[in-house]
Amino acid sequence: MTVSPYLQLEQEFRRLHAFRGALSLLRWDAAVMMPRGSADVRGEQIAALETEHHALLTTPKVARLLERAEAGASQLDDWPLANLREMRRQRDHAIATPPTLIARLAKATARAEVFWVEARKANDFKLFAPHLQEVVHLVRDRAALLGQARGLAPYDALVEVFTPGISTADIDMIFKALSRKLPGLIHAAIELQAQHAPAPLAGKFSIAKQRQLAVEVLRAIGFPFDRGRLDESEHPFTEGVPGDMRVTTRFDANDLFSGLLGAVHETGHAMYDLGLPQQWRDQPVGHDRGLALEESQSLLFEMNLCRSRSFARYLRPLLEKFLPVEGAEWNEDNLYRQLIRVRRGLIRMDADELTYPVHIMLRYELERKILDGTLPVAELPEAWHALVDQRLGLRATNDTEGCLQDIHWAVGHFGYFPSYALGAVIAGQLNEALRAAHPTLDEELAVGKFDGVLDWLRDNVHGIGARLPVKDLIKEATGKPLTAAPYLRYLESKYLESY
Amino acid sequence: MTVSPYLQLEQEFRRLHAFRGALSLLRWDAAVMMPRGSADVRGEQIAALETEHHALLTTPKVARLLERAEAGASQLDDWPLANLREMRRQRDHAIATPPTLIARLAKATARAEVFWVEARKANDFKLFAPHLQEVVHLVRDRAALLGQARGLAPYDALVEVFTPGISTADIDMIFKALSRKLPGLIHAAIELQAQHAPAPLAGKFSIAKQRQLAVEVLRAIGFPFDRGRLDESEHPFTEGVPGDMRVTTRFDANDLFSGLLGAVHETGHAMYDLGLPQQWRDQPVGHDRGLALEESQSLLFEMNLCRSRSFARYLRPLLEKFLPVEGAEWNEDNLYRQLIRVRRGLIRMDADELTYPVHIMLRYELERKILDGTLPVAELPEAWHALVDQRLGLRATNDTEGCLQDIHWAVGHFGYFPSYALGAVIAGQLNEALRAAHPTLDEELAVGKFDGVLDWLRDNVHGIGARLPVKDLIKEATGKPLTAAPYLRYLESKYLESY
Repeated sequence: MTVSPYLQLEQEFRRLHAFRGALSLLRWDAAVMMPRGSADVRGEQIAALETEHHALLTTPKVARLLERAEAGASQLDDWPLANLREMRRQRDHAIATPPTLIARLAKATARAEVFWVEARKANDFKLFAPHLQEVVHLVRDRAALLGQARGLAPYDALVEVFTPGISTADIDMIFKALSRKLPGLIHAAIELQAQHAPAPLAGKFSIAKQRQLAVEVLRAIGFPFDRGRLDESEHPFTEGVPGDMRVTTRFDANDLFSGLLGAVHETGHAMYDLGLPQQWRDQPVGHDRGLALEESQSLLFEMNLCRSRSFARYLRPLLEKFLPVEGAEWNEDNLYRQLIRVRRGLIRMDADELTYPVHIMLRYELERKILDGTLPVAELPEAWHALVDQRLGLRATNDTEGCLQDIHWAVGHFGYFPSYALGAVIAGQLNEALRAAHPTLDEELAVGKFDGVLDWLRDNVHGIGARLPVKDLIKEATGKPLTAAPYLRYLESKYLESY
Repeated sequence: MTVSPYLQLEQEFRRLHAFRGALSLLRWDAAVMMPRGSADVRGEQIAALETEHHALLTTPKVARLLERAEAGASQLDDWPLANLREMRRQRDHAIATPPTLIARLAKATARAEVFWVEARKANDFKLFAPHLQEVVHLVRDRAALLGQARGLAPYDALVEVFTPGISTADIDMIFKALSRKLPGLIHAAIELQAQHAPAPLAGKFSIAKQRQLAVEVLRAIGFPFDRGRLDESEHPFTEGVPGDMRVTTRFDANDLFSGLLGAVHETGHAMYDLGLPQQWRDQPVGHDRGLALEESQSLLFEMNLCRSRSFARYLRPLLEKFLPVEGAEWNEDNLYRQLIRVRRGLIRMDADELTYPVHIMLRYELERKILDGTLPVAELPEAWHALVDQRLGLRATNDTEGCLQDIHWAVGHFGYFPSYALGAVIAGQLNEALRAAHPTLDEELAVGKFDGVLDWLRDNVHGIGARLPVKDLIKEATGKPLTAAPYLRYLESKYLESY
């Protein structure tokens, strides 16, 4: 019995899927369970599995099978055809970067990360600069090679690694629309919130009780605890594969919302991954449709659905069930106003919904200039401070609160930042379509019912997997091409009209 | 620059070591952290990594390098030479079993394990019998192939997988000595203990406090919590690699000793692995010297060192620190008598030091007969009951307490059981040499000092890794060839003379 080239490829990618799952567990464990002294050993294990994954993906056998399968592609249905396209993309990406460059990048980023930590401690960018410079050199080489392989400009090729189907032109168009509207919106929202300032929600909140509360909320959302876990880690994240999804959050005894909303955010990622087409779960077409869409799902749950009046209504009695929340300030309206509090700040990770895209856009601007050489690495700190001053009217006194605050560049993740803001924009557009299709949504959220939301997301987003390019997916889901307009309408309504 | 064939092999085996570490974490997580519904996904990941490990070990490249390195072996020092020998053994084992047979064994044992669970629940051996029969067929094939590859009789070849360097002749010689002495010893010990029956240590003991106690004891032994963890699982086990060792135990609110001594037992394994030669940690010669020596280390700590008067003296004030232990029965002497209580029972896992080898020897006898066909699988239950009756004077009313109690045969582990009893025998011989070399040992144990023990073990056992065959290692460590005599002397002294 001969097996078709396409089906042989499925077999190869099934094995790669198992490797990705194992790698995901190695990373989860490193962040959640691993003893501190074991980092070197774990690093070796991850490097060995990644190297092997790369080797398996770039064998001549896979290349031959891809060519033969593509020659017979006219006989394939929609899903296998899309699967073949995604296989090709993965393999082209893998083969474009030679093993020597991968090894140099791995070493340079490992070193840069160490010195990034040191530079933050010492608050001295100069400790980090030469290592960042080395990373930038290597990322430039990689971007050129990826671009050649995929017929894309270098920066577009980097973006394609994280968010395939979105071009620099798309990002520029969307960020232009945001830049036009957001400053005025932020200003007006802060003024309005100052006039109706919410009362503080002070107290010490038991971590164990916060955890119980989060578990109850996650259960309401539909997170399957028999095929997933909620744990705690330094920064919230999601790892795993459908069948074993693991989310984390970080509880703060002084802040009731950060742990809960962190868990909800990650559960948005998890529900996306869990809703991916089961039949294709171990194939490239069964993967998520890139980081921007991933982020749209976490933000849809955190921002659009749960930082809302209806969710505040649902939360009110739940809080009472788990925590000592006595006093007039624990009313629904005040909870809501606290959930959507806007404050200009220096730190991206602490930013609220409204100011967050500003942090992203300035990173995008800076990383493009660093890569094309118009901004020397040595001048990054001052360029950062100047831009934060210009966009947010704030000036940090040090670089730890400036260009040293994020790990992304140290580990070579250029082209990654835009996905955060694109995610918010996509979430805004999906939210509009979801609410149009589901007029009773708010009443359901107010009693902790999420199945209507999930049904719609499964049909229109999750279940599509990687079958469609992301912009086609959004157009099919919402009936409109991707623009910033629905997102901006949503922000205006939430922060100005209905505050 | 040309790299010698031997050094190229080291590079290949370094990668295999990383795979083994990753596999170990996947298994640890499955037993300790994984949600119950994720078993299928984990199974795929483990199978994919094992398949790849096997493929990497059996490439023509490795075969060529082995031949070239062996041709130049006269120029290698002791350690590289021993490393080359272990590489050859691993590769011969891997190549001897064709992938089709590995796949059939994997499927048959997965199925047999499911029906073993069912058969236990229903207490019906017939549900399990056809699946065990299938496993036995395949294990016979494997034993024949392994035997051909290694120039060994089939059963010896199975033993060599788990405990290289020990032959059936060694096992027979040792078990004969045990069979001659143990029945009388057990009888006399039980009589003696009945005359001076220890008072019961009743109570409900908080699991959290038991955990704290166990952590304090493990710290005293030297377990490095910055490069290891203690967790809880259904059955105690040790996983991980030096640099990230993970032990588990199971605490019982009604039994103070089972959780603590389970943790001590596993820590014996962990201390062995942690003491392996650091310089060779990612090479075959840096591995443990097989299951019997592994078990000798866990039993040395649990039985010889910690089920002792000196340890009872150390434990007495510790118990007081963590637990409500009031009453005359909590004196040192009574603690000790409880630690070494002898009782004939049906279940191997609950057996004490003295009756345990009897359970092992009857399994050895039965599994040899099953493999050579003189005992049909269908007759196993009755043969089991008859042998337990003959050796322990007990008769089970069902097979769940009979031949269904252990998982080993279901998962194809024939040739494994002897290592448990061999471990006890080796521990007995090491214990005698250790005490001769270190006359103040008991005073040190009585105050929770283990560094003298560990120094001796590092020099004579742990630090040898797999450089010497196990019998040579024991002879160098103790000055005597491996026999059951020191072990039997130890048991007689402990259970009769000094009770």
